[in-house]
Amino acid sequence: MDFDGLFNEQLDVLKDEGNYRIFAELERRCGAFPRARSHDDDAPDEVTVWCSNDYLGMGQNTEVRAAMKRVIDECGAGAGGTRNISGTNHHHKVLEAELADLHGKESALLFTSGYVSNWAALSTLGARLPDAVILSDELNHASMIEGMRHARCQKVIWKHNDPEDLDRKLTALPSNATKIVAFESVYSMDGDICPMQEIVEVAEKHGAMTYLDEVHAVGLYGPRGGGISEREGLADRITLIEGTLGKAYGVVGGYITGSEALCDFVRSFASGFIFTTALPPAVAAGATTSIRHLKASSAERKRQREQVAKLRAALDREGIPHLPNPSHIIPVMIKDPVKCRQIADILMQDYGIYVQPINYPTVPKGTERLRFTPGPLHTDGDIDRLVTALKTLWKQCAIAHQVA
Amino acid sequence: MDFDGLFNEQLDVLKDEGNYRIFAELERRCGAFPRARSHDDDAPDEVTVWCSNDYLGMGQNTEVRAAMKRVIDECGAGAGGTRNISGTNHHHKVLEAELADLHGKESALLFTSGYVSNWAALSTLGARLPDAVILSDELNHASMIEGMRHARCQKVIWKHNDPEDLDRKLTALPSNATKIVAFESVYSMDGDICPMQEIVEVAEKHGAMTYLDEVHAVGLYGPRGGGISEREGLADRITLIEGTLGKAYGVVGGYITGSEALCDFVRSFASGFIFTTALPPAVAAGATTSIRHLKASSAERKRQREQVAKLRAALDREGIPHLPNPSHIIPVMIKDPVKCRQIADILMQDYGIYVQPINYPTVPKGTERLRFTPGPLHTDGDIDRLVTALKTLWKQCAIAHQVA
Repeated sequence: MDFDGLFNEQLDVLKDEGNYRIFAELERRCGAFPRARSHDDDAPDEVTVWCSNDYLGMGQNTEVRAAMKRVIDECGAGAGGTRNISGTNHHHKVLEAELADLHGKESALLFTSGYVSNWAALSTLGARLPDAVILSDELNHASMIEGMRHARCQKVIWKHNDPEDLDRKLTALPSNATKIVAFESVYSMDGDICPMQEIVEVAEKHGAMTYLDEVHAVGLYGPRGGGISEREGLADRITLIEGTLGKAYGVVGGYITGSEALCDFVRSFASGFIFTTALPPAVAAGATTSIRHLKASSAERKRQREQVAKLRAALDREGIPHLPNPSHIIPVMIKDPVKCRQIADILMQDYGIYVQPINYPTVPKGTERLRFTPGPLHTDGDIDRLVTALKTLWKQCAIAHQVA
Repeated sequence: MDFDGLFNEQLDVLKDEGNYRIFAELERRCGAFPRARSHDDDAPDEVTVWCSNDYLGMGQNTEVRAAMKRVIDECGAGAGGTRNISGTNHHHKVLEAELADLHGKESALLFTSGYVSNWAALSTLGARLPDAVILSDELNHASMIEGMRHARCQKVIWKHNDPEDLDRKLTALPSNATKIVAFESVYSMDGDICPMQEIVEVAEKHGAMTYLDEVHAVGLYGPRGGGISEREGLADRITLIEGTLGKAYGVVGGYITGSEALCDFVRSFASGFIFTTALPPAVAAGATTSIRHLKASSAERKRQREQVAKLRAALDREGIPHLPNPSHIIPVMIKDPVKCRQIADILMQDYGIYVQPINYPTVPKGTERLRFTPGPLHTDGDIDRLVTALKTLWKQCAIAHQVA
């Protein structure tokens, strides 16, 4: 059987649609971030990264790197096993205590990624709780969708960020159902933030559990980086807060926090937690250091906010439309996968500006965009250079729009 | 609603059965492995680890650690994004080339874990290939089972390591089905090895794709550590070889290798690949170094085999029964979760010997065991001490059996 033929058939569809993905091959330069070395032939040797989720540049933080290097030498490269079979290291336990404290919860549980934490936790809750129904915001992340799908329990989709629709849908459910309301604080592609208080109140009214994904908010919002739930003083009213160590904290890994019984339940039953090698102790130590740093320091968050505001103002001055939102994410809509790729290619090749075209399946077809994430390490000069380049391209793009 | 009550209800069942898991909290001591510092009150400060999947002690290898530390300083702690959105680092590409070479394949694709690589690859193949049927060995790993479940395609279970049963089941399928035969080389809990040539021949006869999990074999078997498929000269006849960087290679992460079209297909469609932060560049660099080392050096494999043989011989001398198998894994069957935990506790507390009791759901209920993985760094003295302790306990255990 010609398997490659079958694969290529489906890949050709992606290519025809303009949705085939080409990864930029970079080497981030520590100490010079957001500068990176490019390994792509068409790009300049040095480029400026404008689409990283290392939102605060913590990946190059000296203390974080020192902690990782120290623990590599103390404990070795990897964990050596699953958490149950020889893989639980003291540094995992320290990190879990730090995470519980971050969100004011009794307990925390570490996963190999944010994706796995959502997938494993939601699928375990949905599958094992009696008469479980997961009520999911319609724009929830792929990892949550896959987790719900895997749970094979009843699912109800409510309108994005619409507590009234949630209320209606909760009202329609039988009283004996175990209701789980799943939503995010910051939605990463549009950069909008949920009306958390209203959602929590609706959930409480119906006796529903709340499952909150804060991956694009932890480290970035709240006085200690505890996310939107900390900023709004709502963390103690949320049943489960999920987050990542791979974005603002600059390392890798995911987690959930909640009551001791909840974390113990997921720990004891989630296949995606049980049957996988634990994160390297050095990764745990680096993440702990990063969380502690951002609990104490607001300098990175403050400077990020300033640079975000500056980029928005500069875009407005030049009449380059961007999605309004109250977060650190600046989406510039292109709405065509081929044009989105073309603009990104020109930015990379002619200006040394790297912003990945965001296309299907990350966003719905027809909503393709460039997504800029200004951070504390982008200079005012970086912002000027970006806006100047976009201004030039935007004219060309507008012309292209007219022709099309 | 009393959610904690719901969680505790199910946790109590585990506790009553003796299947509640207690993780040993360790700090592996680099340079002294298999020695580790214990953080558990009941255990001695220093223990000897007998159940690690860092099979060759590569986690403490000097070159591996040096590569990781160098790249932490060059590129930072984390990757900073998904592979598509700013997260592809040069070190990922170098590792993927190394992995393709390891298995003599055109291409390779890196995942955050072996679990995710199986789950994402099998679910994508099963869901997207026309009329796909996955034929799965009945003892395949949880990550493969979850991947098949997620694929929602037809599944057929064949008898463990039984090519004749596989042949019968393939024969019963319609000719237009896309058949995928999924199996492992070394089964980690019993330590048995599949009859690979027979399985490959049956699959070829029926035009089926072969999906081989080599996680407990890569680095350990074959002249360059390419696994059982390399040792048997069968790698080029297998469609997809999956492996891990978290066991013999001592770091963390998973991968698949195969044709360029196959890897590109999974890269382009697998949710668990697309929507997750890439592994830290330093992890990739450490894994590359480890693979290169074990391609060139057979010293670790040779010494491991010697220590495995010595432990088996010593167990035989003392009449302690263990499952016979041709691999590096030595299971001592206890067949009762409570006794299994008791023996492990005594070994830890009284002898400083750490072997995790293996219970449900890792193995079926009633097949609980101690699973020893001797490595090149276990001394003859370590083996003596282990067998002496087991001899003492085995008598007590035998008495306990009589009473029960």
